[in-house]
Amino acid sequence: DHSLKVFTLNSNRQLAEDIATHIGTDLGECTVQRFSDGEIQINIEESIRGCDVYVVQSTCSPVNQHIMELLIMIDALKRASARSINIVMPYYGYARQDRKARSREPITAKLIADLLETAGATRVITLDLHAPQIQGFFDIPIDHLQGVPILSDYFEEKRLEDVIIVSPDHGGVTRARKMADRLKAPIGIIDKRRPRPNVAEIMNIVGNIEGKTAILIDDIIDTAGTITLAANALIENGAKEVYACCTHPVLSGPAIERIDNSKIKELVITNSIPLPEEKYSDKITELSVAPLIGEAIVRVHELQSVSILFD
Amino acid sequence: DHSLKVFTLNSNRQLAEDIATHIGTDLGECTVQRFSDGEIQINIEESIRGCDVYVVQSTCSPVNQHIMELLIMIDALKRASARSINIVMPYYGYARQDRKARSREPITAKLIADLLETAGATRVITLDLHAPQIQGFFDIPIDHLQGVPILSDYFEEKRLEDVIIVSPDHGGVTRARKMADRLKAPIGIIDKRRPRPNVAEIMNIVGNIEGKTAILIDDIIDTAGTITLAANALIENGAKEVYACCTHPVLSGPAIERIDNSKIKELVITNSIPLPEEKYSDKITELSVAPLIGEAIVRVHELQSVSILFD
Ligand SMILES: Nc1ncnc2c1ncn2[C@@H]1O[C@H](COP(=O)(O)O)[C@@H](O)[C@H]1O
Ligand SMILES: Nc1ncnc2c1ncn2[C@@H]1O[C@H](COP(=O)(O)O)[C@@H](O)[C@H]1O
Repeated sequence: DHSLKVFTLNSNRQLAEDIATHIGTDLGECTVQRFSDGEIQINIEESIRGCDVYVVQSTCSPVNQHIMELLIMIDALKRASARSINIVMPYYGYARQDRKARSREPITAKLIADLLETAGATRVITLDLHAPQIQGFFDIPIDHLQGVPILSDYFEEKRLEDVIIVSPDHGGVTRARKMADRLKAPIGIIDKRRPRPNVAEIMNIVGNIEGKTAILIDDIIDTAGTITLAANALIENGAKEVYACCTHPVLSGPAIERIDNSKIKELVITNSIPLPEEKYSDKITELSVAPLIGEAIVRVHELQSVSILFD
Repeated sequence: DHSLKVFTLNSNRQLAEDIATHIGTDLGECTVQRFSDGEIQINIEESIRGCDVYVVQSTCSPVNQHIMELLIMIDALKRASARSINIVMPYYGYARQDRKARSREPITAKLIADLLETAGATRVITLDLHAPQIQGFFDIPIDHLQGVPILSDYFEEKRLEDVIIVSPDHGGVTRARKMADRLKAPIGIIDKRRPRPNVAEIMNIVGNIEGKTAILIDDIIDTAGTITLAANALIENGAKEVYACCTHPVLSGPAIERIDNSKIKELVITNSIPLPEEKYSDKITELSVAPLIGEAIVRVHELQSVSILFD
């Protein structure tokens, strides 16, 4: 019986339930606990022999805990004879450590890919990788979903006028371009540069923002330093109002305080990383990636069922 | 230059310094920090190109944190062209998950071995593995050191009279036998059995303990339930006094309270896992494994230097 089973670990239970509901199934039974000394104890409570298993786990904070839960779960599934072990990682932790910025640095994003494969993952479904090159770190198939349509649809429904999509840095221009295409809007770039080391950055705004409604888009908002400085610079330079959006709300350290104190009118995020109670802010709107991921799972599963014909 | 370099991560800095001192070198320079979101950031601050590197890290609590530090460090060393990456793990976390006790359980001790190899470890030096079979989980050379001589020497110097070495369970009899050989003492066993499920265990003591000084020995003391029940049973059954010892003082949850309230006169441990301030107890004596490990490193390094001749 090559049936589809969805399991969740501890990072993202609500999203996993929403995904299961979306594809019309229940979550698989599995206990994920800690021994007295903090070691992870996993027991899968139902047979998964011959099944195509999908494990939902974002490797968000506490990142090392969540990675180990995932690796141990994969090991257990492999030993219990799952037919395929598909990892659904809405947020891929350590993605920013994707190259050696200085000598003798690790490339942890590649290490994570290797660890997942070693444990026994057979496929990865993920969303808005910090760098698309991370796909190449895997030797197994990887499905790379995009958050831009979900974020764009939300702003489209708001029917804002005279919109400009702004990338908060050079690295995000392609993403801004994709959103601009959907909203039929022009793009702008916050063009930061440091004339000399230890001299304050100069923030130059490329694009005409005068009197416009700016929408800042990024993949990850972590400490929110970049995005809030960008928002304030836009207002100071004549933008009428500033919205911000991102796929992955890491929101660590001073993030919420910075957002609340910034000129950002509304911050739109997805539930790739669940927002804990203490990070709630009136300015934040959360959109669900459950339908997007649910559909991806259904598509992948159809593919895998078809491949039985060739088995 | 095939020189030897010793690095430490965050689990066991003092032990690593003691090891470096023992072999007459300084610790390598390396910063191990956290980004704002909790991700580990490692930077090796000196060249290690062509070196034989020894990384000291016990994967004790917080275990997942310590494992990820180790894997990321190995990745960084590999990319910085270390000649060999030797992992010194005085305590091997997850060692008790070394078999499937129930169906659909992971075998995390094997997973850890695979992860270390995948990251790039070329050799492992470890101490008193919970099960010697774990050596077979590795495809790279593993040096398995023994804590029994250190613990035995300590008790030998105490010149206790009429000693019996007692294993707190069936699994530890071989270890008790080794200590008994060194101290020229007889052995005893706490022979627990449960007549029926949900009926209290019966503690039967095998061996003549009447009027004797019992020394309980185990590899790991975790919550200290087993060892303190054993000690109390020994006293109730006529032992004169009870000492206890172990290599790995996990000492989680109620351990210290149980030890303090037990009939154990003195608990002798090693520094394979550092004892945090809050776990200090008057009853505890800590012995150092730094000389043992230091000598193992020197031996392994001689071996590796010899192998250059054949390179
Ligand atoms: N978790 C993290 N938090 C902050 N910075 C990070 C993190 N992981 C990696 N980095 C750094 O962020 C830089 C990559 O970010 P980016 O230039 O946006 O691709 C690298 O220099 C990394 O050292
Ligand atoms: N960290 C841990 N704390 C307590 N028990 C554990 C831990 N890891 C594994 N175990 C369990 O301990 C048993 C193995 O212990 P042992 O019988 O002493 O080899 C297995 O049934 C495991 O499920």
